[in-house]
Amino acid sequence: MKSHLDNSLIRQLKAIVGENGIFTDPGDCLPYGYDNSRLQATPEAVLFAVEHDQIAAITKLCHQQRIPLIPRGKGTGTTGATVPQQGGVVLSLERMNRILELDVDNRLVRVESGVTNRQLQEHVGAEGFFWPPDPTSAAVCTIGGNLAYNSAGPRAVKYGTPRENTLGLKAVTGSGDTITTGVRTTKGVVGYDLTRLLIGSEGTLAIITEAILKLTPKPQTKSTLQASYRDIHSAANAVSAIMRQPVTPCALEFMDGAALAMVREFSDLHLDSRVGALLMIEIDGAEHNIKQEAAKLAKAASVEGLLEIHTAETQQEIARLWKTRKALSPALRNIAPKKINEDVVVPVSRIPELIESLQNLSEESGITIVNFGHAGNGNIHVNLLLDPDDPQQLTAGEHCLKSLFDLVLNLGGTLSGEHGIGIVKRQFVDREIDSVSLDLMRAIKRQFDPHQILSPGVGFPVSET
Amino acid sequence: MKSHLDNSLIRQLKAIVGENGIFTDPGDCLPYGYDNSRLQATPEAVLFAVEHDQIAAITKLCHQQRIPLIPRGKGTGTTGATVPQQGGVVLSLERMNRILELDVDNRLVRVESGVTNRQLQEHVGAEGFFWPPDPTSAAVCTIGGNLAYNSAGPRAVKYGTPRENTLGLKAVTGSGDTITTGVRTTKGVVGYDLTRLLIGSEGTLAIITEAILKLTPKPQTKSTLQASYRDIHSAANAVSAIMRQPVTPCALEFMDGAALAMVREFSDLHLDSRVGALLMIEIDGAEHNIKQEAAKLAKAASVEGLLEIHTAETQQEIARLWKTRKALSPALRNIAPKKINEDVVVPVSRIPELIESLQNLSEESGITIVNFGHAGNGNIHVNLLLDPDDPQQLTAGEHCLKSLFDLVLNLGGTLSGEHGIGIVKRQFVDREIDSVSLDLMRAIKRQFDPHQILSPGVGFPVSET
Repeated sequence: MKSHLDNSLIRQLKAIVGENGIFTDPGDCLPYGYDNSRLQATPEAVLFAVEHDQIAAITKLCHQQRIPLIPRGKGTGTTGATVPQQGGVVLSLERMNRILELDVDNRLVRVESGVTNRQLQEHVGAEGFFWPPDPTSAAVCTIGGNLAYNSAGPRAVKYGTPRENTLGLKAVTGSGDTITTGVRTTKGVVGYDLTRLLIGSEGTLAIITEAILKLTPKPQTKSTLQASYRDIHSAANAVSAIMRQPVTPCALEFMDGAALAMVREFSDLHLDSRVGALLMIEIDGAEHNIKQEAAKLAKAASVEGLLEIHTAETQQEIARLWKTRKALSPALRNIAPKKINEDVVVPVSRIPELIESLQNLSEESGITIVNFGHAGNGNIHVNLLLDPDDPQQLTAGEHCLKSLFDLVLNLGGTLSGEHGIGIVKRQFVDREIDSVSLDLMRAIKRQFDPHQILSPGVGFPVSET
Repeated sequence: MKSHLDNSLIRQLKAIVGENGIFTDPGDCLPYGYDNSRLQATPEAVLFAVEHDQIAAITKLCHQQRIPLIPRGKGTGTTGATVPQQGGVVLSLERMNRILELDVDNRLVRVESGVTNRQLQEHVGAEGFFWPPDPTSAAVCTIGGNLAYNSAGPRAVKYGTPRENTLGLKAVTGSGDTITTGVRTTKGVVGYDLTRLLIGSEGTLAIITEAILKLTPKPQTKSTLQASYRDIHSAANAVSAIMRQPVTPCALEFMDGAALAMVREFSDLHLDSRVGALLMIEIDGAEHNIKQEAAKLAKAASVEGLLEIHTAETQQEIARLWKTRKALSPALRNIAPKKINEDVVVPVSRIPELIESLQNLSEESGITIVNFGHAGNGNIHVNLLLDPDDPQQLTAGEHCLKSLFDLVLNLGGTLSGEHGIGIVKRQFVDREIDSVSLDLMRAIKRQFDPHQILSPGVGFPVSET
């Protein structure tokens, strides 16, 4: 690979971030060259900024010298979007971790983008608020990363994704210019919506350095229901029925038959053998009201094919109900540590067709496919249990992936609900997005990043990036 | 003004829309040349499309021939965004009024953009759903217009604006190309967010022809509270207190002292003379729960300076409480039929500073300023009661406007919460948006609309459009 840095450039970068703000030793750089995909590439240098102006200066220099510049939070992404495949410099935002302002009267918090999701939740939680996006990696992942991928999690079914929970941004474009987007208020229509354009752009348009996040007051209490069904059809009907009535759950998660089989085999939990699909339904609200709301959800969930439904209110009972779901991930990790994990989305009513077709695909290909995820959004984590180091399995897996994506698009769905495209899915993007829109997106990219230095190769089909 | 159409072009346009799809007589065209601002210009022709492909063909022709093309819903905008100041053709979407699909299982509806807000609400209401955006002009205004301006209304405080309630769009760019944006699901992160980029772009990037809207199940019931306060400080403290707790009202409207004075003088309602500010608080929810929720809101609203609080549950009581608010608009219309109506936004906690400064401004300028609006969003309708045909008053009014916008920006606010920029506010845009962002917006405009035919002059500062 072409080298982009020479001693003079390293000196200039050092002058911006200081001696302690740069790694150039490959051993030091290595841990900043991978994420939670199977991709890896050692960056030529890793930079640690502690303030916005450093990032502007770094970007300006990289723009002038045409050095690939890859912004990175904590590397919990699953698509290789922060892997420097074309070399260049990784810019770690992890030291930009100050909470700059908490304004409870106006329900907002202003943070640097390296603040972790957990750090944020703890800080605003002390004042009775939360920020709805809750990716599984919340303990580690950064707000900047959450915004870059528009990462959500179970709560999105009630509270939306980062796009619905962010008021404004401060960012550095690919030419090193500073922009501030959006507002400090919950309404604002002056100019085009650059805030949401940056959210979900995977670091390809600008480097987000600060965000003004919209906070939500914490509900008083929670209640959890576990409903088991004969088959996926019944469970999907229950999901539609739940989403048709006014009590929106704050989580509506499901596991399919293959996932339950996995738990039966690899945990000591006793699961009724008739259960073909499981829903976990969580609601939050006021203490005086939670029982009645839970009863309403239980009623909506009671469709033909329901086998059993349990409601939990105490922490202990809730933990017991979640046991089945929590037993799944270790089971999967045991069987297929390098499994392929997709996060497709289909309209809620099409979930049964998706799952059934995946069962057929599994039988045809000989690859076990396990499905679970955020049913209320139709966001299904499809897990192909295979060993990618086995070329035969890998080929079969790639065939499965293509079939999966065809299937999802035919059902009116989308290739990704929260993981994004990154590098691993870019060859499939033009199946979903029409060529006129793709050309417009490329044109927007060129305007924000004229020398195409920011996360090059990420998000677009390979041919013309 | 330069004429853009000749007989040959008119023939070509007729071939696209048919004999019944075009007006060229100035008398016929006139009613399509104004909106709810004070601006007016007669279009050279008015076209009525009934399907997407006609719009693509019209736009392609206008693009080739460089004819200004102004998409228009029902002309209820307040900023002149649909007034053809540079001549050309107005494209009325009012005949594109089909509801194409209602998918209750997936909580979505697909509509043509000429469907009116009311038509939509009635259609989906029959199935137990609603679409949250509720501009005052809901009986008349179109979904396309709501999307073009990101128009909201009182319910935005709980349910958000069109940006939070739209899944995807079909649209025609300024070069006549068709794009489909977004998804049919509540999550989706493939590609840049062109959906929200188009929403609020005031018809300058593309003509929206279809929209997939996210529906919300209708709550069982509503309750309304009216709280009167000694002064605006107490009322604003109440607003902050209400927004800090988990029961979010579905409307949180306010009237300031000047508005109340107006009602006292021009209606037969008896208002306690001590009342300096009034809040109207509405909640929706389940029947079994609404009283307790109302009690919580009443408690939150009971801050120092509260004079009285009333709760209404029956339709009759609710109507009685809204009487004061509803008496305001006729009163204003009587006094100043051509008043200037702004819709600035400030952070909720800064409302008192805004109102006080406006009182000072009113005294200095001799112009009565009356304020009311969506307090929960900090979205204040500032009404300058003046006669714009009186040059002296107009000059004083323009001075007031400038001071108002300075004030709003100093308080961390934005120039518009739902009306948009259009033509009337474009000279102020660069006070709010930095020059780098403005250049990026202009570049985006050029990509979507290379010959700058769509609503030319709208939304950007005059100098460089």
